[in-house]
Amino acid sequence: MAMTRLNKKIISDLEKIREAALGLASLSSATKDRILASQAKALLKNSQLILKANKNDLIAARRKGLTSAFIDRLTIDKTRIRKMSDSLRALIALADPVGRTIKRWRSPSGFMISKVSIPLGIILIIYESRPDVTCDSIGLCIKSGNAVVLRGGSEAIYTNRAIFKVLSSVLSDFSVNKAAINFVSSPQRKIVDLLLKKDKYIDVVIPRGGKGLIEKISRLSRIPVIKHYQGICHIYVDKYADLNMALNLCVNAKVQRPGTCNAMETMLIHQAIADKFLPMVIKTLFIKGVKIRACPRSLKIIRGHGLGHGPVRLVRDQDYFREYLDLILNVRIVPDLKAALTHINHYGSHHSDAIVSADKDNAEEFLRGVDSACVYHNVSTRFTDGYQFGMGAEMGISTDRLHARGPVALEELTTYKYMIRGKGQIRN
Amino acid sequence: MAMTRLNKKIISDLEKIREAALGLASLSSATKDRILASQAKALLKNSQLILKANKNDLIAARRKGLTSAFIDRLTIDKTRIRKMSDSLRALIALADPVGRTIKRWRSPSGFMISKVSIPLGIILIIYESRPDVTCDSIGLCIKSGNAVVLRGGSEAIYTNRAIFKVLSSVLSDFSVNKAAINFVSSPQRKIVDLLLKKDKYIDVVIPRGGKGLIEKISRLSRIPVIKHYQGICHIYVDKYADLNMALNLCVNAKVQRPGTCNAMETMLIHQAIADKFLPMVIKTLFIKGVKIRACPRSLKIIRGHGLGHGPVRLVRDQDYFREYLDLILNVRIVPDLKAALTHINHYGSHHSDAIVSADKDNAEEFLRGVDSACVYHNVSTRFTDGYQFGMGAEMGISTDRLHARGPVALEELTTYKYMIRGKGQIRN
Repeated sequence: MAMTRLNKKIISDLEKIREAALGLASLSSATKDRILASQAKALLKNSQLILKANKNDLIAARRKGLTSAFIDRLTIDKTRIRKMSDSLRALIALADPVGRTIKRWRSPSGFMISKVSIPLGIILIIYESRPDVTCDSIGLCIKSGNAVVLRGGSEAIYTNRAIFKVLSSVLSDFSVNKAAINFVSSPQRKIVDLLLKKDKYIDVVIPRGGKGLIEKISRLSRIPVIKHYQGICHIYVDKYADLNMALNLCVNAKVQRPGTCNAMETMLIHQAIADKFLPMVIKTLFIKGVKIRACPRSLKIIRGHGLGHGPVRLVRDQDYFREYLDLILNVRIVPDLKAALTHINHYGSHHSDAIVSADKDNAEEFLRGVDSACVYHNVSTRFTDGYQFGMGAEMGISTDRLHARGPVALEELTTYKYMIRGKGQIRN
Repeated sequence: MAMTRLNKKIISDLEKIREAALGLASLSSATKDRILASQAKALLKNSQLILKANKNDLIAARRKGLTSAFIDRLTIDKTRIRKMSDSLRALIALADPVGRTIKRWRSPSGFMISKVSIPLGIILIIYESRPDVTCDSIGLCIKSGNAVVLRGGSEAIYTNRAIFKVLSSVLSDFSVNKAAINFVSSPQRKIVDLLLKKDKYIDVVIPRGGKGLIEKISRLSRIPVIKHYQGICHIYVDKYADLNMALNLCVNAKVQRPGTCNAMETMLIHQAIADKFLPMVIKTLFIKGVKIRACPRSLKIIRGHGLGHGPVRLVRDQDYFREYLDLILNVRIVPDLKAALTHINHYGSHHSDAIVSADKDNAEEFLRGVDSACVYHNVSTRFTDGYQFGMGAEMGISTDRLHARGPVALEELTTYKYMIRGKGQIRN
């Protein structure tokens, strides 16, 4: 299709979506919850159809020689469908994020001002592989009253389209315009480039995927982007740490699920306790299969305690900027709390960082001084997650500063308007 | 200076600013207020210096043959300096927007989560002409703990620099790093292009100026932009309006200060009351010097009442998209409330719109249905303003949806972080 024809088609589609978005935004909480229940049921009822579509994707993936980790993320079975269905149902229990009066006050001229939450409008979600993102995104958008345009990875095209069709087909039972949920089926890459220029129609872009995808979208987009970028997370073990607690937290943050954004990538240790703490923690980490990149001082201690035979080498400065997403850990001894703050603010990604300390003043200085979305005192960084925060399902973790920071859940998918009610007030 | 050398200089400056921003962010409310008081005093004390600088700009402006309206906005006198000083002092009375606990709750795993407001970080403000923006912006950034980079219009360069110098010189008395407030003195245009690519250092760009400036910055910026775009505001006079109130509100919204973004540009009238209301309002608007662009039906009524001799002509469709900022008004008769909503959501700029009606249901339908930052029932649109809302000084009115919508005041210049305090919780 020629560029201009394609562009015209996209604009005409977006105009329909905008129309549908207004309808979706005005649905009652009860209707939205009934749609979610109906979608949860439809997923189970149509599981054969989804599994069949998934087989097509899997055949293509094997033919392309994709990695087994990739194929694992792509694979859908009955349990995964059940989980998707459950997570749609879980949204029903959460409070409607729309129509909430955030604040209400009387203006100096005597009229009432209400700041009320409303949907963002139209959300474009661009994602890679995992097909359950299709289901999660649709559910979150229904509950928050947002229209959505989904663009999934080509490797999961059959599965994503099947899930989309099942969830979309439910809308007509509730007289909701089907254009409120969209799936970009065409494999043409230039569609994304064109969509990213449509800032008059699309209100926000949420990319879900690797660093490369996010960088590309941020560069091309004229629409505001909520980025889930890197998680280079730290734990600082303070001079006054309970060393057993520190051991537990550090091991948990590194090994419980190393492939996640909130796993620890660098452990900072106060020099006063390094001699005692390092051997404890390194022994355990070795047992768990963690490879260590150590600073000169910590390497010396590790070797001095006869642990030099383990998988340990000298850390390089650029290692501190890396998100390993793997059983690899940087270890650095710091002279004091201030040096820990400087390290984290310089090398970190403003995601999640923790201090372990029994000293309240040091803890508060850390919580204030670290410029990250989530700062922890005596808690594992692994808790940065909408569900763990009690906010329900999430669209990701924002590493941006504007609009949403940290978990992007239902509330973060809304904006607000001011409703002003008066008695004929005019301005002098 | 070669591009790479200039670029290196900018990065080195921004690194100093980032350092200073951390210091500014950690100032106590009392210190920030003392700085503001000291700056307010310094402005008055150095008024001769500022007036002299302003003369230089005025001479250049006259030489360039700039319009008298432009020269008026550029001119600084003792009263204007007093006003700037007063508005700095007014910030002292407002609550510190930083360090506020927005929410606090216990997580499912038992640790406490506090959502706490913090400064955005580093704000780049790009503005045209009016030199009091220099003072306002510095004051708002000090109070909200943000470092600021100011880039004013070349026509006010001497005045802006003088104001900046006076306000900046105060910082050292409080041991605050001077790099926290910056003014880009160099006239090189490419500095702006380079700054707009520095998304690793600058957290938000706020352009203050005409449509052209804002469009250009949005196009070039890799940094999130808070836009104060157009104000195409409407008043809809409902079938059930108190017509005297409607007359007052419409005249106020159009003529009280037509050059502002919250002035009315289009008046929508329900067909059932048009015959009665139109002659009333048109007569008054003519007296006030307003030119009318009328839809065919309203033109017929205007002529039918012998008002056809006034400054009135047929409206064209593209007129409905225009922000006149002048004594010109579109008038359109609509069949019902629904048609008014459709008109506003299509032609408007999502800024400020009002309904005049004694019918509560219609009013509520309007408030819900109009997709604008500020929606009014029986109040003039002219009230969209941080000060009128009781929010204090403002940086502008956001017509965006993300982060800030409507008046951008102190609270909108902050973001948040989650502070989590626990007892060694790990994730299972």
